[in-house]
Amino acid sequence: MAITRAGFVGLGIMGRPMAHNLLEAGFKLTVHNRSRPAVDELVAAGATAAGSAAEVAKASEVTITMLPDTPDVEKVALGTDGVLAGSARGSYYVDMSTIAPAMSRTIAEAGAAKGVQCLDAPVSGSDVAAKAGTLSIMAGGDREAFDALQPVLSAMGGKIVYCGPAGMGETVKLCNQVAGMGTLMAVCEAMMLGAKAGADLNAVVEALSGGAARSWMIENLAPRMAKRDFAPGFMVRLAQKDLRLAQQLGTEVGAPLAGAALAQQLYRAVEAAGGGDLGIQAMATALERLAGGEIRG
Amino acid sequence: MAITRAGFVGLGIMGRPMAHNLLEAGFKLTVHNRSRPAVDELVAAGATAAGSAAEVAKASEVTITMLPDTPDVEKVALGTDGVLAGSARGSYYVDMSTIAPAMSRTIAEAGAAKGVQCLDAPVSGSDVAAKAGTLSIMAGGDREAFDALQPVLSAMGGKIVYCGPAGMGETVKLCNQVAGMGTLMAVCEAMMLGAKAGADLNAVVEALSGGAARSWMIENLAPRMAKRDFAPGFMVRLAQKDLRLAQQLGTEVGAPLAGAALAQQLYRAVEAAGGGDLGIQAMATALERLAGGEIRG
Amino acid sequence: MAITRAGFVGLGIMGRPMAHNLLEAGFKLTVHNRSRPAVDELVAAGATAAGSAAEVAKASEVTITMLPDTPDVEKVALGTDGVLAGSARGSYYVDMSTIAPAMSRTIAEAGAAKGVQCLDAPVSGSDVAAKAGTLSIMAGGDREAFDALQPVLSAMGGKIVYCGPAGMGETVKLCNQVAGMGTLMAVCEAMMLGAKAGADLNAVVEALSGGAARSWMIENLAPRMAKRDFAPGFMVRLAQKDLRLAQQLGTEVGAPLAGAALAQQLYRAVEAAGGGDLGIQAMATALERLAGGEIRG
Amino acid sequence: MAITRAGFVGLGIMGRPMAHNLLEAGFKLTVHNRSRPAVDELVAAGATAAGSAAEVAKASEVTITMLPDTPDVEKVALGTDGVLAGSARGSYYVDMSTIAPAMSRTIAEAGAAKGVQCLDAPVSGSDVAAKAGTLSIMAGGDREAFDALQPVLSAMGGKIVYCGPAGMGETVKLCNQVAGMGTLMAVCEAMMLGAKAGADLNAVVEALSGGAARSWMIENLAPRMAKRDFAPGFMVRLAQKDLRLAQQLGTEVGAPLAGAALAQQLYRAVEAAGGGDLGIQAMATALERLAGGEIRG
Repeated sequence: MAITRAGFVGLGIMGRPMAHNLLEAGFKLTVHNRSRPAVDELVAAGATAAGSAAEVAKASEVTITMLPDTPDVEKVALGTDGVLAGSARGSYYVDMSTIAPAMSRTIAEAGAAKGVQCLDAPVSGSDVAAKAGTLSIMAGGDREAFDALQPVLSAMGGKIVYCGPAGMGETVKLCNQVAGMGTLMAVCEAMMLGAKAGADLNAVVEALSGGAARSWMIENLAPRMAKRDFAPGFMVRLAQKDLRLAQQLGTEVGAPLAGAALAQQLYRAVEAAGGGDLGIQAMATALERLAGGEIRG
Repeated sequence: MAITRAGFVGLGIMGRPMAHNLLEAGFKLTVHNRSRPAVDELVAAGATAAGSAAEVAKASEVTITMLPDTPDVEKVALGTDGVLAGSARGSYYVDMSTIAPAMSRTIAEAGAAKGVQCLDAPVSGSDVAAKAGTLSIMAGGDREAFDALQPVLSAMGGKIVYCGPAGMGETVKLCNQVAGMGTLMAVCEAMMLGAKAGADLNAVVEALSGGAARSWMIENLAPRMAKRDFAPGFMVRLAQKDLRLAQQLGTEVGAPLAGAALAQQLYRAVEAAGGGDLGIQAMATALERLAGGEIRG
Repeated sequence: MAITRAGFVGLGIMGRPMAHNLLEAGFKLTVHNRSRPAVDELVAAGATAAGSAAEVAKASEVTITMLPDTPDVEKVALGTDGVLAGSARGSYYVDMSTIAPAMSRTIAEAGAAKGVQCLDAPVSGSDVAAKAGTLSIMAGGDREAFDALQPVLSAMGGKIVYCGPAGMGETVKLCNQVAGMGTLMAVCEAMMLGAKAGADLNAVVEALSGGAARSWMIENLAPRMAKRDFAPGFMVRLAQKDLRLAQQLGTEVGAPLAGAALAQQLYRAVEAAGGGDLGIQAMATALERLAGGEIRG
Repeated sequence: MAITRAGFVGLGIMGRPMAHNLLEAGFKLTVHNRSRPAVDELVAAGATAAGSAAEVAKASEVTITMLPDTPDVEKVALGTDGVLAGSARGSYYVDMSTIAPAMSRTIAEAGAAKGVQCLDAPVSGSDVAAKAGTLSIMAGGDREAFDALQPVLSAMGGKIVYCGPAGMGETVKLCNQVAGMGTLMAVCEAMMLGAKAGADLNAVVEALSGGAARSWMIENLAPRMAKRDFAPGFMVRLAQKDLRLAQQLGTEVGAPLAGAALAQQLYRAVEAAGGGDLGIQAMATALERLAGGEIRG
C-alpha cells in the first residue's frame, strides 16, 4: 500500500523546497518548524501545520527531518516531543540532515525498539537542486525500508544511492564532503597559480574541464570565483560543519585526512574574515589574502 | 597553403601514437628518436627517418617534439643539432612536452629571431587518448600560428584550447596538474575514510559521481583503486615531475600551493616504496600505509 | 592567613604525584577519586578520603581538580555533588586539567556567583615533572587569587606563569600544545630525512641541539625515537585530545592551524595502528610507515 | 705541522666576519670576492687579495668557500679558475655554504683525484654568531681531515660536529633547516592562536619557554614577532633556498616532508608580498594575512 501521508520538520533553505516537492508529488503533508513564516508558506501551498515534531509524526506514515547539526537531530528525533515519541509502529522516519553517523545508528536502534524503520538519507546539492528535485541522496538503513520509501525519496532527489545499513548514508555523505572540499581546494590552487602567472582564467577553466582534472568544482565554481561571485549555493560555515564531522569520523575509524584538514584551515580563514555565509567558492579568497593576488578574469 | 610535411622528435609512450595519428591524417612525416625500434615502427608505417632533430626540421614545415623534461627540450630545441638549427624561416615548431614555461618563452624568442614560429602545446590525457587522437591540448604562442596549425593539432587532439602567448600552454598545463593531483588526493582521502568506516566502496563511487564531488578522478581512478589495479595510465614519477614544475612556477609567481605540496609528499612515499612506475591512482597506497588499512571493494 | 586545608579530586598518573607533593609541603589534604587504590595510597600517606567532590570542597580552603577532559570537569565542578556545590564562600577552586577555555570561563562565573574564586591552571610536563614538583603551570583567573594561591601552586610546579583572566591559563596551555606538537613534527621530519639519507642520527641530534633548530623535543624525544623507546612521558591520545581542543579554539577565534592539523593526522595514524597509549615521540612511527624506513641509530 | 695559510672565497654577510675571525686567530689569509669593497675591508685588516679562487688556493694550505647556492659552489670549486684547479696536493678545501649534498660528494671525489682533502662544513647561526665566532658547524668528509682542520674550524665556530663522510655535513644541515623551519611554523601558529584568543603574548612566550614546547624559536623569534621586528638574522629567501634543497634531498632519498612543505608555502606568501629579505620570523606575517589578525603584544 502506497505511502500518502508525509511529515516534514525543518523548513530551512533546503527543507522548504524539499517539502514543496513532496506536496507537488501528491503527498498529504504535515509540517513543523521553529520559526513561523516557512510554515505559513507551506500551509499556503496545501500543507497542514503541527505544533511539534511528535504531532507531525502522529499524522504521518513517514516523517522527514532536515536540520542543521547532530544535536538538533538528537533533540528532534529522540526528545520527549520528538519524532519517535509520536511515531506509530510500522511508520518510517527519514533524517536527511548531515550529522554524525553514530547518531544515525543510535536513532535507528531507538526506532527499531518502537517498530519504526529509520533511514539516514543526507543529500548533496544546493538549494537549486533542492528546488529542482534533483538532489543526490545517500541512504543508509534497512534495504526494505529504502525500497518502500522510493516514491518519497524520488519526489526530492535525482540520483538515489543505497549505501548500506544505518549510518552508512551519513558515512558516504562525509566521504562526499571530503572529496568535494579537497577538490575545491585543488581548483582554488590551480586558479591562483594561473592568475598569478598571468593566464587567461577562461582558458584555464576551459582546458581543465576537458581532461583528467575535470570536476564539478572546476566547471561550476571556478567561473564564479573568476567573476567574483561568492553568493552561496552551499555556505562556508556548513561546509566547515561537515568537515568537522568528517574529521570526527576519521578519528573514530583511524583515517588520516590531511588534505581535508588543510581545506578546513582555508575555510576558517574565510570565516575569520566574516565570510561564513558566503558560498564555498569563497575558499579562493583565503588563498588570495595569503598570496596577495586575485583570481579575476 | 596547407601544411603537408611534419616532423616528430621523441617517440615514447605518448609520442609514438601521436606520430601515427599524423601519418593517418595524411601528413608526410619525418621522425627522429634516441632509440631505434620506435623509429623502425614509424618507418614501417610510412614515415622517413632522420639522423638528428635538425634534419627532421630541415625536412618539415612543422616540427613537433614530445620529450620527458625541460633539459631534454632545451637540448633538442636549442642545441647545435637541434630543431631551430635546422628550421627554415617561415616554418613552425611545436613542443608538446610538459616543461617549465620559462623555457618555452626562451625557445619562442630564439625561434622568432630565426623567423620560426613556436608553440608550447602540452597535452593532457594518457596513452589511450594519444592513440585515440583525443588528447586535450593547451597551446601558447602566436594566435596566428595556432590557427595555421589547427589541422596538425587536430590530428592528435580532441579538445584544443588556445591559452595565450608563449609559455601559457605550459602554464595552463601546470594548473591542470595542480587541479588534477589535488583532486586525486581528495578522492583518495574520501575512499580511505569510506574503507575504514566500512562503507561499500561501489556505493561511495556511485554516490560521489552524482553530485558536487564529481570528478574525472572519482569516476575513473577510484574504481581502479578499489580493484587494486595500479597499472599506469599516467605514471607517479611523471606526476611528480609535473608537480615539481608547478611548485617552481608557484615560487616564481608567488602562488602558495599547499595542497599540491601535500600530494607530492604522498607520491614521494609511493616512490620510496618502489612505485614510481605505477599509475597515479597508487597515491592511495601511501595513505593505506599511513593508515594501516586498504581501499578494496 | 595562610591556606592549610587543600582538597584534590582526580588521582590519575598526574594527579597522584601532585597530591603527594601537597602533602609533603605540609597541607592537610582531603582527596576523592573514582577508583579506590589511588585514594588508599594517598590516605596511607596522610590524606583523608571523602565520598564526593562536594565533600572534598567542604573540607578544604582550596580544592584542586585534575581530570581527563572538558565533560569530566564540567560534571565534577558544576554537578550536584560537585566542587562548587560544596565550596564555602571565600574558598578557592583550581582546575589543573587541560580543557576548553570556554568551560573555564563558565566555571569561573558560576564560582563568582557563589563567592568562590576560581583559577584555570593547567600544567605542562610529564609525570616525571609531576613527581619532582617541577611542572610548568599556566594560570588564568583573578590576579589576587593567583597571588594568594602561590604556596599551593609552588608545591606542585616550578615555573608558574600568570596568563590573565579566567580561561587564559587554558588558552596559553593550548598554545603550548600547538607549539609543542608542531615542533615534534618538525623533529620527526628532520630525523626521518637524516635516517633516509644515511646520516648518523646521534650527530643529527647533537648538531641540531646546538643552534637555531634547538628544542626540548630534539634534545629529549629525538634520542628516544632513535633508540626505539616509545614509552610514554605524555601519551599520544592525550596529545590528540589537546590538539582537538586547540582546533576547537582556533575555530572559535579564527586562527588557522594547518601545521597542528597535520600533526593530528600523524597521531591519528599512530592511534589507528594501536599506539594511542605510546609516548608522543611515536609520531615518528607514522612517518616511518609512510616513508617505509626507520629512525634508528 | 700546524696550518698557517688560509684562503677565503665569498665575503658576504656571513663570509666577511668568518674571514675576520680567521685573521684574528692568527692565520695568514688570502681572499677573493666578486665585489671589491669586502675585499678591501679584509685587506685593511691584514689579508692579501687574490684575483681568482684558483690563486687563493695556490697561496693557501686550506681554502674556504662561503657562497649562496649549489651552482655558485660548483663553479668556484670545479671551474677552470676554481679552487681545485689551484690547490696543491696535500692541501685542504672546506666549503661552508649550504648546498646539495650530492654536489659536496662530487667535489670531494674531484678533490681526492687531485690529492686535495675536502670537507663540507655548513654552518647554523646568523651573522651575529658569525661575528662572535660561535657558529654551529656540521662537517662531512674524512675524519682525519676534520681533525687536522680543528684549529681552522674553531676560529669560526662554537659547536663543531663531525657528521660522517662527504656530503653528511650538508645532509645534517638540511635536517637542521627542516627542524628549524617547522619549529618556527609551530611557534607562529601558537602565537597566532594566542593573539586571536586575546592572550598576553608575553605570558605565552614565558610559559612556552618553560616546558616541552621550548625552542630557540620561541625564545628568540617569538618576542621579535610580537614587537613587529622583522629585521633579518636569517633571511626568508635563504630559508626558502634551504628548504628547496631539503625537499630535493627528500625526493632523492624518499623522505616525506609535509610540514616543511607547508612552511615553504608560508615563506612563498611572504616573498609574494615583497618580504624575501625580511628575517624568517616574518613567516608570522603570512599567517596574519591569512587569518586577518596581528601577533602584537
